[in-house]
Amino acid sequence: MSFITLLTDFGNRDFYTGALKGTLLRHCPDATLIDISHDIEPYNILHAAFVARNVWADFPEGTVHILAVNCAYDAAYRFVLLRHAGHYFMAPDNGLLRLIFEQSPPPHEVRLLSGNNEQKASVRHTFAEAAGRLLSGQPFETIGSFAPPLLERIGLRAVVTGQRIRGTVIHIDNYGNVVVNITKELLESTGKGRPFALYFRRHDPITRLSTNYCDVAPGEPLCLFNGAGYLEIAINMDRAATLLGLKVEDVVEMAFE
Amino acid sequence: MSFITLLTDFGNRDFYTGALKGTLLRHCPDATLIDISHDIEPYNILHAAFVARNVWADFPEGTVHILAVNCAYDAAYRFVLLRHAGHYFMAPDNGLLRLIFEQSPPPHEVRLLSGNNEQKASVRHTFAEAAGRLLSGQPFETIGSFAPPLLERIGLRAVVTGQRIRGTVIHIDNYGNVVVNITKELLESTGKGRPFALYFRRHDPITRLSTNYCDVAPGEPLCLFNGAGYLEIAINMDRAATLLGLKVEDVVEMAFE
Amino acid sequence: MSFITLLTDFGNRDFYTGALKGTLLRHCPDATLIDISHDIEPYNILHAAFVARNVWADFPEGTVHILAVNCAYDAAYRFVLLRHAGHYFMAPDNGLLRLIFEQSPPPHEVRLLSGNNEQKASVRHTFAEAAGRLLSGQPFETIGSFAPPLLERIGLRAVVTGQRIRGTVIHIDNYGNVVVNITKELLESTGKGRPFALYFRRHDPITRLSTNYCDVAPGEPLCLFNGAGYLEIAINMDRAATLLGLKVEDVVEMAFE
Repeated sequence: MSFITLLTDFGNRDFYTGALKGTLLRHCPDATLIDISHDIEPYNILHAAFVARNVWADFPEGTVHILAVNCAYDAAYRFVLLRHAGHYFMAPDNGLLRLIFEQSPPPHEVRLLSGNNEQKASVRHTFAEAAGRLLSGQPFETIGSFAPPLLERIGLRAVVTGQRIRGTVIHIDNYGNVVVNITKELLESTGKGRPFALYFRRHDPITRLSTNYCDVAPGEPLCLFNGAGYLEIAINMDRAATLLGLKVEDVVEMAFE
Repeated sequence: MSFITLLTDFGNRDFYTGALKGTLLRHCPDATLIDISHDIEPYNILHAAFVARNVWADFPEGTVHILAVNCAYDAAYRFVLLRHAGHYFMAPDNGLLRLIFEQSPPPHEVRLLSGNNEQKASVRHTFAEAAGRLLSGQPFETIGSFAPPLLERIGLRAVVTGQRIRGTVIHIDNYGNVVVNITKELLESTGKGRPFALYFRRHDPITRLSTNYCDVAPGEPLCLFNGAGYLEIAINMDRAATLLGLKVEDVVEMAFE
Repeated sequence: MSFITLLTDFGNRDFYTGALKGTLLRHCPDATLIDISHDIEPYNILHAAFVARNVWADFPEGTVHILAVNCAYDAAYRFVLLRHAGHYFMAPDNGLLRLIFEQSPPPHEVRLLSGNNEQKASVRHTFAEAAGRLLSGQPFETIGSFAPPLLERIGLRAVVTGQRIRGTVIHIDNYGNVVVNITKELLESTGKGRPFALYFRRHDPITRLSTNYCDVAPGEPLCLFNGAGYLEIAINMDRAATLLGLKVEDVVEMAFE
């Protein structure tokens, strides 16, 4: 059984998603298509990278991940195929892949697909043809051509200065939880178990790390690490982003004693 | 062919749905995943129960229904597996299952899954492992452990007092139709064929039961029983909820002569 | 492998989509269901026709396309099955099929399905039974009964008057691009390579046809033909519909020298 996942900024009111699916099934009639999201904010490769990074490894090896986000807005865009840990990724070379995998991939793990972007329509044919070849067993090395290095794009990273971690809000989830680019590893390696105070906007700092949303009373703010290992600012049973006035790209600061 | 349906409050902009699907396919590579909805209002088990109750029986026997709604907001939440009429249901034990099936299930039809809710992430592993065992043919009784009684949660029911049925709006559908918790059976057993007047807000009462939206002129209000057997207040070719000012939890009253 | 595509105005918060999927899988357990969209604007068969017209031919021959849009608002609605170019289409006979295929189909390519529309619920049974018969190999001619001619519904077409094409906005896509019912063929046959000026609202006319969004500077308006062959008014990296104040049914005019 072969799986093809779909992550796009196509939305759900247009023909783009349907046309992509049909074209894929023409080339890969035995594959199973899995919708990840078609509601990535238009052009927003940071949003797409956040979702893709936390999804791909859950799928079985051999899965083809199609990342069709911000496909059409630069005539120089090339479409590429990347092999990583037994998974395949197809995307425009617009920086998205470098946001998902922070390391630059070895040259022999990337192939340039023969697409052009004159029309949105052509993207789907480029992806579908390559997926058809891959899933029918053709060797990775015979698909497309040798690729130049992927476009670099550096994601926002938390910055450590002395006794402080300066983080950035990278996502607001469906529950209004505020996801910050401070990972559990970074907190542990920087904080070394010391008490902390998490400052955000002009609110009182949060000084305790929770493990469950219900560790505090309903309506109270808290912070915890979510299932993907990122710091989350949340409110038990309510929408933290709205109530605390936090949005993507806001800065938060964690100070250690 | 095995089917796994997905009903969640995860939304479509996060990684939660994709991560759940990937984890399920790792454990159940031959299963077919079917999206029911990921747009259940966050935490709203009444909304989830309304959708689930009107969907599950349409699927073939043996289907596994994953109900991942309001999963993470109580440290005591347990995840359970329920067998009913040849179908399997996995959900947090947060009252949702008792809203779908008004009768309390026999103890031997419920299994406690070994989940904890420290992280949203763990929910998907709990469900996927159990689904994998079920679909590979392991006996129901060997999955998880004996479960305590399910959390009780009583849904809003229409109340009959003398010559009146007092109902509540339980859902506004995609067309703006207003769904009320008065069933066809209740109307027939209470009204016994007598004329009625349906009062809602300060509008003129509706006194006739329609069978089609077009039984009245476009723009006129009507009531009928929908495909699921609930009373609906609608407007032919327009949005009754908006135009009549009705919303979920509003009370309507049906009086018999 | 048999595919059934789903294009509906059911939305994603109700039980309608789930109930349709379950009923289809009961009748067609080996079919693969493919979501095209459930976000067609309620009752809007023009929107549905625009999406369906640009999607169906990408799927493999033999695909069954279920078009469940504006199903329930006329007691006289009949449900029909149309065969076209090796594809099967099921829809209410509400004009939608005539908007997709501008030619009237030969009588022997249409079958009347034995549905009634008393309840939304029955639509799904009508479609599922017919799909089950089709996919199990029963001859097209034995399904349902001989159908009267399909309901006529003429879509908005661009009008050519002297040296001008008068077009209409038929869709705003997920990126805010404005799709107009002027096709590449019409421009070529009418303009014959002459310079043009595209007027819309009170903005300066666009006088050049682009091939890529990035042919102009970011923030600048342009026009190009999209992947489906329609004229699009767009803004490089921004939302043309919002910034230029264009909406569905607005008129634009293309004048040739």
